[in-house]
Order: sequence, then structure tokens, then C-alpha cells
Amino acid sequence: MAQHDRRQPTRSARNPGPGPHSFYTGCMVSTPPGALERALKANHKYASGRPSPQRSWAPQMALVLCMDARLDPVQFLGLQYGEAHIIRNAGGRMAEAIRSLAISQALLGTAEVAVIHHTECALLGLTENEIRARVQRERGTTRVLPDFLPIADLKDSIREDLTLYRSTPFVRQDIPVRGFILDIQSGRLTEVT
Amino acid sequence: MAQHDRRQPTRSARNPGPGPHSFYTGCMVSTPPGALERALKANHKYASGRPSPQRSWAPQMALVLCMDARLDPVQFLGLQYGEAHIIRNAGGRMAEAIRSLAISQALLGTAEVAVIHHTECALLGLTENEIRARVQRERGTTRVLPDFLPIADLKDSIREDLTLYRSTPFVRQDIPVRGFILDIQSGRLTEVT
Repeated sequence: MAQHDRRQPTRSARNPGPGPHSFYTGCMVSTPPGALERALKANHKYASGRPSPQRSWAPQMALVLCMDARLDPVQFLGLQYGEAHIIRNAGGRMAEAIRSLAISQALLGTAEVAVIHHTECALLGLTENEIRARVQRERGTTRVLPDFLPIADLKDSIREDLTLYRSTPFVRQDIPVRGFILDIQSGRLTEVT
Repeated sequence: MAQHDRRQPTRSARNPGPGPHSFYTGCMVSTPPGALERALKANHKYASGRPSPQRSWAPQMALVLCMDARLDPVQFLGLQYGEAHIIRNAGGRMAEAIRSLAISQALLGTAEVAVIHHTECALLGLTENEIRARVQRERGTTRVLPDFLPIADLKDSIREDLTLYRSTPFVRQDIPVRGFILDIQSGRLTEVT
């Protein structure tokens, strides 16, 4: 019961907060509690019925995208087993992907990069100060994190992240690096040029 | 043809480098070039055939795991639409997940956390100096990145990451935070306690 009370409704769902559009459109707390426990049971079933995957594989590209719970890149990009390193963080920001990309390229030989931001992102339309204030209030701390990497405009954030990539000596500058916006309603990617 | 020459075989595949076991066991450069272009075509097809997803959703938990190209958490955890924020980076390290977790919790109300490291990880068995030397050699730079977050031992790296979480005031300390090792051959998760 404690688990049940803990999770619904969440504090954040009661306080969707500022921003030009709410991230909570169509968002309901409908999943029963114990999501992780259920996932672990699913894993047990998954592993029990599966032979060892002795398939050959080779990572070809690295994708940087948001942690958003609605995004399944394997599905919306039709990814094949073993072909893509998938780097995900809040917003899909390059600043937090450079270490992983350097490893992906120098240790594992990937030769293409795509960064994907998406419509209805939780970071879209919030300012650094608004996010910081919310985190500080929710956690009851006055300590300051350096940067939540908010997104004011999707095209700008993609360009910013491509520029950051291009100014970083630890990642390959001799390969294609492309930026896209994912429309979360249609599932369609549009390149930012 | 330039694209073809660029990708196979990769420099890294020729030089798997140090470590107690090679990351390249069973690894072949078999995928044809243009992986991203093919993924974009797959996206076009995906988006064309899909109605808008007006499904309700609510993130319940946040998962931190490696970018490894063989891992599909939706599959090995049986994830439902919209229930999990998925944070991925090289190794699945907590140090690079704190910003995302703070946002996941304070803005979106998730109330469970799992960090998952895996067998055959590229970071496993390499030292900081070895990774740095490889990146510097491959990129032709002598600049130094602060930390590649290598993994000497999977249980230790999980414990280290749980400790880091527990010492961070920006993330919830009143919820379950659990650590697991994924056996990449069997697909099975084992909790680190």
C-alpha cells in the first residue's frame, strides 16, 4: 500500500508548471504501481525463453536523443540489432553525449552521428531558472546544479548541439553529423539544416 | 564508394585494444554502409503508416543503462508505452545521469530508479589511461577529457553509481533505487545488493 500511495498521483502531475504548452497533455497516471517489479518479471520471462544471441553485430552509427518515455528509437528508426549506439538524456543534449560519442567512435568505430530533439519535450519552453527552481523546491535544497540544458526552440537547440559537436576535438570531424526534430504525434523526423 | 571505404573495416575493429576480454567477440562489419540513411527511410515508412498516438501515458520509473548497440530495454524489460524514462550513455554511468534523473523526478514525477550495467561492456577492463590514450590517438589530439568513467568490475561500478545517487541532493532519496547487471548472452538481470 505504501508503494501505491507513493506513486499516484505524483506531485508533478498535480503541478505541471510553467511553459507555453503543458507536457501533460493526454498524460494520465494510469499504470499500476510497481512498474520496475513488473519489468523485472518481464525480464525473467524474456531471458527464460531466449537462446544466446550469437548474432554478428557492428555499431555503425551513434544516435543522441531524449529520455522521453514515449520514444522508442528501435521502432521509429527501424533499427537492426547491433547497428546503433543509443545515447539518451533529458532533451537529447550533445553536452552530455560527448564522452559517449568519443568512446563510440574511438573504441567501436561508429562513423555516423544523428542528434534528435522532439516536439512536446519537457525541457521545451522552460528556462534554466524555472527548472532549477522546480528541482530545488521538489527536493528541498538550495544547492545549484550547473545547467539543466533547457530548450527554447527546437531548431536552435539542434543547431547549438551540432555546433558543440563541431567544436569538440575528441569526436570525429570527418563524418556526417546530422540533426533532426521528431514530431511526437506523427512519428516523423525532419532534418534541421 | 567513399562512404563504403570509410566504414569497413573500422580502425577500431582492426585494433580491439587491451582488456581481459575483447569487445569484438562475434563482432563483424556486416551491415552495409549508409545505416543512418536506411534508418531515415524506415522512419518515413513508419510515420506514413501510423495514426497519431493519443494514448495516455505517465512515466513511472527512470532507467539508466549503457548505449551498447545490442541492448533494447523495451524488449528485455517488456516496457509499456510511456512508462519509463530511458537514460543511456557509455557504460550506463550515474555521473552522467543525475541531471536527467533530477528532471525526470521533479518535472515528471517518476518514483523508481534502476541502474543497469552489462557484461561484455566496452568500458569493462579498460583503464582511464587506456581509453584516453586510444581517443587521443584516434583523434590526433593531446587534449585531455576529465573522465571516461571506465568499469573495472561490474558489481563495484553498480555500487559506486548507487552511492553517487545516494549522495546527490537533487534526486529523490525517498524512493527505491536499485542496481542490476545484465548478462548480455542470457538477457537476464541480476540485482546487485
